[in-house]
Amino acid sequence: MIRQIKSDEQIDADAIHSMSTRTDKEQDCVCTVATLKMDVAEFRRRGKEMVDYIADYLENIEQRQVFPDVQPGYLRTLIPEEAPEVPDSYEDVVRDIERVIMPGVTHWHSPYFYAYFPTASSFPAMLADMLSGAIGCIGFSWAASPACTELETVMLDWLGKMLRLPDDFLAGTTGQGGGVIQGTASEATLVALLAARSRIVRQIQADDPDRTEADIISKLVAYSSDQAHSSVERAGLIAGVRMKKVPTDEKFAVRGETFRAMMQEDKDAGLLPFYFCATLGTTPSCAFDCITELGPICNAEKIWMHIDAAYAGSAFICPEFRPFLNGVEFADSFNFNPHKWLLVNFDCSTMWVKKRADIIGAFKMDPLYLKHDHQESGLVTDYRHWQIPLGRRFRSLKMWFVFRLYGLKGLQAYIRKHVGLAKEFERRVREDQRFEICADVVLGLVCFRLKGSNELNETLLKRINAARTIHLVPCQLAGRFVLRFAVCARTTESHHVQEAWAHIAEIASELLQDIPH
Amino acid sequence: MIRQIKSDEQIDADAIHSMSTRTDKEQDCVCTVATLKMDVAEFRRRGKEMVDYIADYLENIEQRQVFPDVQPGYLRTLIPEEAPEVPDSYEDVVRDIERVIMPGVTHWHSPYFYAYFPTASSFPAMLADMLSGAIGCIGFSWAASPACTELETVMLDWLGKMLRLPDDFLAGTTGQGGGVIQGTASEATLVALLAARSRIVRQIQADDPDRTEADIISKLVAYSSDQAHSSVERAGLIAGVRMKKVPTDEKFAVRGETFRAMMQEDKDAGLLPFYFCATLGTTPSCAFDCITELGPICNAEKIWMHIDAAYAGSAFICPEFRPFLNGVEFADSFNFNPHKWLLVNFDCSTMWVKKRADIIGAFKMDPLYLKHDHQESGLVTDYRHWQIPLGRRFRSLKMWFVFRLYGLKGLQAYIRKHVGLAKEFERRVREDQRFEICADVVLGLVCFRLKGSNELNETLLKRINAARTIHLVPCQLAGRFVLRFAVCARTTESHHVQEAWAHIAEIASELLQDIPH
Repeated sequence: MIRQIKSDEQIDADAIHSMSTRTDKEQDCVCTVATLKMDVAEFRRRGKEMVDYIADYLENIEQRQVFPDVQPGYLRTLIPEEAPEVPDSYEDVVRDIERVIMPGVTHWHSPYFYAYFPTASSFPAMLADMLSGAIGCIGFSWAASPACTELETVMLDWLGKMLRLPDDFLAGTTGQGGGVIQGTASEATLVALLAARSRIVRQIQADDPDRTEADIISKLVAYSSDQAHSSVERAGLIAGVRMKKVPTDEKFAVRGETFRAMMQEDKDAGLLPFYFCATLGTTPSCAFDCITELGPICNAEKIWMHIDAAYAGSAFICPEFRPFLNGVEFADSFNFNPHKWLLVNFDCSTMWVKKRADIIGAFKMDPLYLKHDHQESGLVTDYRHWQIPLGRRFRSLKMWFVFRLYGLKGLQAYIRKHVGLAKEFERRVREDQRFEICADVVLGLVCFRLKGSNELNETLLKRINAARTIHLVPCQLAGRFVLRFAVCARTTESHHVQEAWAHIAEIASELLQDIPH
Repeated sequence: MIRQIKSDEQIDADAIHSMSTRTDKEQDCVCTVATLKMDVAEFRRRGKEMVDYIADYLENIEQRQVFPDVQPGYLRTLIPEEAPEVPDSYEDVVRDIERVIMPGVTHWHSPYFYAYFPTASSFPAMLADMLSGAIGCIGFSWAASPACTELETVMLDWLGKMLRLPDDFLAGTTGQGGGVIQGTASEATLVALLAARSRIVRQIQADDPDRTEADIISKLVAYSSDQAHSSVERAGLIAGVRMKKVPTDEKFAVRGETFRAMMQEDKDAGLLPFYFCATLGTTPSCAFDCITELGPICNAEKIWMHIDAAYAGSAFICPEFRPFLNGVEFADSFNFNPHKWLLVNFDCSTMWVKKRADIIGAFKMDPLYLKHDHQESGLVTDYRHWQIPLGRRFRSLKMWFVFRLYGLKGLQAYIRKHVGLAKEFERRVREDQRFEICADVVLGLVCFRLKGSNELNETLLKRINAARTIHLVPCQLAGRFVLRFAVCARTTESHHVQEAWAHIAEIASELLQDIPH
């Protein structure tokens, strides 16, 4: 094995060579030293240095260019082709964070980052995550670490109460529901779809035991908004079921009548509608499907209604935004991502179901090495039956730390601040006659564009991102190329938004000068 | 909203009540204070305290009872029913770690923990994870953070070289393969199955465009060992395909001829064999399917062979254990969990495929908000097309820190030490005529039992776990109830194994006295 030696590294190539010619006993000595290298005393020191590095990084993140300049393949040339035989020094590793990693990082927590949707970051969540890593239990069953399972159940109840979810969805009630942390909203959508598929297959086979699962599945049809996230379509692909996109109205929302007509047509054609994934806060424009219209239709037709509020859900802890969630009482399952906008670092996607048995029924199998004494007591939850993976981290610690150290009022204030910043940006756009707003600004996302062609707006976005001062991504709304301005970082302040707008306006001016009208 | 007040908590109930009667403006003031509470200066302090807490926890873990005494529902009674309106103090939160969490933790990193399989824990991985949390990028595409994607690709090459995987599986070669970090082996198994399903549907439809996907899927049949992990059967359930269990030989391994006969029978019945999940290191007994026999059959029949070596894979970095991986050259995909036995904290399940296009083909969809300039260059990897979730953490940092700070020699020494400890335990069992060894001890797992009935052994296990000194879980081998002794913790030493054996032997003596022969 040949190792690429970097000139700035204090490695003696001869020493490495001689290693391979040593006796086994000599090698064992070297190995023992190696495994002892980072002991608990050194961890105390290095851990504290890392805390300072992290604090420095986040304190000074504005000074870093938000989007990197690197070209594809940049990193491979900066590090050896193989892992070292003997340990590198810790100093070398730390030095390489700035030399190798940081030049290629897109800084999601920079207040100049306005792309995609936010991903949460807070100090309480980071502290809890450190603790979670140290406990390092794999909470697939109650017995695998009771605290891991029980704190999760109770935190989902806390959060459900913050959202004023119907009692049906909470575990600590007389209902049959409860919550779980999934890794991502994509997984929640898929888990709900699989539970719905399993439920309808069971229902149909109960009436008609001779009908095969394959035959039933071949007739199933699931629905979502034509604005829904790509992961919804993907869930259909994974589950092997037809997934149809329901057209949206001028607000990019699915209305009850549109859905009813489409579904009826499918029923008349012999298909079996079984699942509707409603979106509250779509990715392109933060639109809201009309779940108060859709819910009763789904209930009447025994169609599983799942609500994906990945981004917007966090806002529902504020009474003024809670009305968007009206209609959740019709849903079979509901999901949103505290790891987007509720200060809980990724990953933490919270999902509630009205009937635990529905979700467990899609997955349950119990080999002996996973059984434990309390399993059949009815009091315990084995979360492995609620999700795609088997293993799981102790993620509810992050929720616990964040909820307690911000308090509900603190979390509400955080949401309101971001919404206020988006409104501020919207006002600036509306004041500039060259621009237009392309969708209602309800939460922290502003969809806007230059009045003019898609090509013009594509060029505008290219120039904005090429300047590297701020970072945005586009979307398509009713065939139009639109720029998305999403308030993302925890530390974004009014002056950042003002700067961002001034920068965009300036680039637009240059662009309009360059291009003849 | 009524908050349950704990007697030992310094909360003024009147203050909370008066809060709800304050004016909005007063409340806003409180909120601003709340959101500012944990600033970067406080994080520096609290982060360092947390490092010390973690160091203390791991340094003194032996003094904690390995398996908790709590009953289901214990935690809910210890904390309020709702999140606080205003922040709790950090001191309260930290105090509650010992009061609420630790009494319910199963200590996976205690040297008295011998249950399931190990889950990795090392200081370098914890440091890297802290950094990963701070960078907090969501690396679903190259552009979302180039360093996140590129370090992963190169780390998978580093690890692939440590395992001496064929070049076909590495990204930095002329081949068409490459690696990815999945969350768990369950996801890797499912992703491989979906890729295989998608590939065979495309192949059949290329010859016969009128044949529907549903019809093809209804004829598909996948296979795994009857010893395979429950997640394999679950993957079949999710993908909606038939999954058959192939009987194993006296070593609990699948042999080529058994599989060939079963598959031929299915083909004769009009079914379409398309996927075989081979296991290297089964969960019950660490048995190895004969992939040198199975691989050529799969290749000849165009059946996707996936290899799941979740636990055992880490050992293949040692030349003496690498022969178990012979035959990997016939596989389409291969997976194991560095988060089990290679000192990289959960989650980090590494998967390689021979043809990137196969895995991407099962998932790819590209909405505009996820597109970026470099996408079509052929040089970049967008890992969202390789996995079930969309979002992903910067997990390769953990591999980078661990590989560099242990070195290959250090990692090999670690594996060898665990295998040595298992052999030591095996010797003790063999020396005691009351016991028998139930499967070859090859790596870090010993399957053993008292000579006698299943009932006797169930009682033995119950008594061992009830004593709370060590923790074990059982398995079933050829109808026999068997105890599994898995060397798990990083800090397990010979004297712990000796103590564990003495303890088991003593409980066995008591049991044999209590029960008439």
